[in-house]
Amino acid sequence: MNFHQQNMITIPDLIRKKRDGGQLSDDEIKAFIQAVKEKTIQDSQTGAMLMAICLNGMVSAEIKALTREMMSSGEVMEWPDEWKDFMVDKHSTGGVGDKVSLVLAPALAACGCKVPMISGRGLAHTGGTLDKLESIPGFKVEQSREQILKILDSVGCCIVGQTETLVPADRVLYALRDITSTVDSLPLVTGSIISKKGAESLSALVLDVKFGRAAICKDFESATELAQMLVTGNGLGIRTAAVLSGMNSTIGRCVGNSVEVIESLETLKGNGPDDLMELVTTQGGLLLVMTGLVSDLSEGRKQISEAVVGGAALSKFQAMMEAQGVNSDTAQLLCSTNADYYSVLRKAKHQLELKAPADGIVLEIDGLALAQVLHRLGAGRSKAGEPVNHSVGAVLLVSIGQRVTKGDPWLRLHYEDLALTPDQRNHLESALTVGADKKIQTQQKHTLVEKILPEKYQ
Amino acid sequence: MNFHQQNMITIPDLIRKKRDGGQLSDDEIKAFIQAVKEKTIQDSQTGAMLMAICLNGMVSAEIKALTREMMSSGEVMEWPDEWKDFMVDKHSTGGVGDKVSLVLAPALAACGCKVPMISGRGLAHTGGTLDKLESIPGFKVEQSREQILKILDSVGCCIVGQTETLVPADRVLYALRDITSTVDSLPLVTGSIISKKGAESLSALVLDVKFGRAAICKDFESATELAQMLVTGNGLGIRTAAVLSGMNSTIGRCVGNSVEVIESLETLKGNGPDDLMELVTTQGGLLLVMTGLVSDLSEGRKQISEAVVGGAALSKFQAMMEAQGVNSDTAQLLCSTNADYYSVLRKAKHQLELKAPADGIVLEIDGLALAQVLHRLGAGRSKAGEPVNHSVGAVLLVSIGQRVTKGDPWLRLHYEDLALTPDQRNHLESALTVGADKKIQTQQKHTLVEKILPEKYQ
Repeated sequence: MNFHQQNMITIPDLIRKKRDGGQLSDDEIKAFIQAVKEKTIQDSQTGAMLMAICLNGMVSAEIKALTREMMSSGEVMEWPDEWKDFMVDKHSTGGVGDKVSLVLAPALAACGCKVPMISGRGLAHTGGTLDKLESIPGFKVEQSREQILKILDSVGCCIVGQTETLVPADRVLYALRDITSTVDSLPLVTGSIISKKGAESLSALVLDVKFGRAAICKDFESATELAQMLVTGNGLGIRTAAVLSGMNSTIGRCVGNSVEVIESLETLKGNGPDDLMELVTTQGGLLLVMTGLVSDLSEGRKQISEAVVGGAALSKFQAMMEAQGVNSDTAQLLCSTNADYYSVLRKAKHQLELKAPADGIVLEIDGLALAQVLHRLGAGRSKAGEPVNHSVGAVLLVSIGQRVTKGDPWLRLHYEDLALTPDQRNHLESALTVGADKKIQTQQKHTLVEKILPEKYQ
Repeated sequence: MNFHQQNMITIPDLIRKKRDGGQLSDDEIKAFIQAVKEKTIQDSQTGAMLMAICLNGMVSAEIKALTREMMSSGEVMEWPDEWKDFMVDKHSTGGVGDKVSLVLAPALAACGCKVPMISGRGLAHTGGTLDKLESIPGFKVEQSREQILKILDSVGCCIVGQTETLVPADRVLYALRDITSTVDSLPLVTGSIISKKGAESLSALVLDVKFGRAAICKDFESATELAQMLVTGNGLGIRTAAVLSGMNSTIGRCVGNSVEVIESLETLKGNGPDDLMELVTTQGGLLLVMTGLVSDLSEGRKQISEAVVGGAALSKFQAMMEAQGVNSDTAQLLCSTNADYYSVLRKAKHQLELKAPADGIVLEIDGLALAQVLHRLGAGRSKAGEPVNHSVGAVLLVSIGQRVTKGDPWLRLHYEDLALTPDQRNHLESALTVGADKKIQTQQKHTLVEKILPEKYQ
């Protein structure tokens, strides 16, 4: 008889096991997540456990249990039977100027999917889809479960914030990961992303895993590792595919809140930049394949592209705006041809154009530097809960590979009362690299590099 | 210009650096300890940092900075110039029945040292010197700095609790290490032990590093590693030596609070068990060498032994009890020959003798099992701050290597209202191993295995 086996396993025991490189059992992971949810674990213990997971990793079975237990820590959505095969969503690891959701959600709805898109807010240099949408007067991202069901029924897509009841364990862990430098642990990232998608009871999910200077994953290899783990290791039975895309510059030409809404609307009117369209059609195409609505990716891409270029997605976006609280006149105006966007959206008090410092070819535009300065000017927040300034933003007037002449404007900055400091201006100017060399680094192009699909769809 | 270099280093930056295996600079360690002291760091962050240190370790320079900064987080004691070479103390990593301090402190005082012994309380299966002393009616372990100075002047030794102003950073970190399973990280152990001794402004320090079943270090190798780090890596300029001693069984024959006080008094009257005397004379001898009061260890051991056997240490103990609040009649009675201890100390309501299950040689007595059961019966505490029952304890009636006959009593248990459960009784009975084999495992003997001395004293 072992005197200690009589006792329940304690939180310090669980931490010690992971500290020593052990594999936590399903029951042990359940006990950890339950303690997080019920706040019976102390913050110092959660911090220690997160670091132990970060440093010692988790095997596939542990990640699956973690994801499942996190999902089950709150409400799991239920859908009508006839929708079940068509429930889709996407997740991006975060980019600069990443407005894919605003175009993709209505395009998928136009193709027959149901898209209960649960998005986040921006933090530090990464923008948030919810912040972008809130620059449209009247747009309400907080929607009840009943409202979501109603909007999906009438429109087919919605873009909403996370409700209080969904994955409460993630809410706690996410906040602590942020301050304990354990954000980029693959098992923790997987648990966080997939548990939230699991609680949406999805049929199919596509992940946009970004790599490069302005992404969480700094290189292709680590992005591939994360994508593989998300696709094959999530263990919730959601059909999952991933795209790997470079994130050194920006997606499209606009970075900020209002300016990205405008670029999204222009895309939905058929005037979208190539890189954004590439991301939208690939991610949408993969989802259409996984739902079985099309038989292969090229057909999927074609359907998504037609929905965007042909105006069907724009109609869905207009209907979604109205269903989420936007006045119908406003929605109609924004979706009209040659819309005067700033008659509805707030324009920043000041605009400033930066000029190219020399003749040459645009070799590089540093998306991270751009986003960092915009963040300081109020477009982003430093702490969760802070307000953002929707009108602050920047529009690139040149693209990579383009020839410029000294003095040509290359960036238009929209800013408010907070003016650029000399340091910020230097930092912003350093974002542009102009040179004689015609050879542009391929990493700079914002093209889709690779797709990871579950085996059965390959 | 790097846009980020303008910013101060943040706590998440420090955590990330250690997470990634980096070496923290003196300034970074100072910032961490200051944040701990000033409570500007969140508990989750401290937990994550402790785990990162635990898993990625620290190099010698980091440990020295950690120790120094922890020490400087509070008050550092000051002594009269003429005492400075003779200020000594000891630290044990914790054993079962470890009453060395009660004998060693007065013996050292009798040899001319000043001993401002700052001890701790028991937690889980390890007993605490303060708890033991508090079983003597009137003994006050809380003493002000002024009182300590006065007692050292008149008696030469005191045994007191840590004051609020001494090493406040350790108070915080120690509590968090306990619940985050980061107790046995060598850099953290070193910082904790040595910073507290540094704040006592010692001249010389001896460490009793225990290994075995009932010790923090389960094997000789890890104990050696810890001892080496404590002796050579502490960086505060305190002359430091260590002894490595086995801790599978018990020290002496008594385990508990009152019963250990009785065994200590008996030792001070010249009737001490060999293993306890060996530990006392070696640790005391090493300190006398390091203070320069004797020229070699054998002379040091001899002086300590004479102080114990000759009664000088007993007189010091009696004087110390009186100086720390014990009524002089009580102190005198306890120190008299053939004292009726239980006329002063509380005796437990019940006594129970366990009998040997078979004829044979006592091969093993499991100190950990013994301590665990006593802990459950009230001799120890499970959480800091809980009271302990001073009268609960056990006296071994046999020793390892002794021949016993079936039915011979081998253990006398003192207990109160909480009676033994059948499981506890089983566990206690399993602590004794009787066999035919005359070969006793050497690890079982509680002998001193090795001494580590700074080079100049070897």
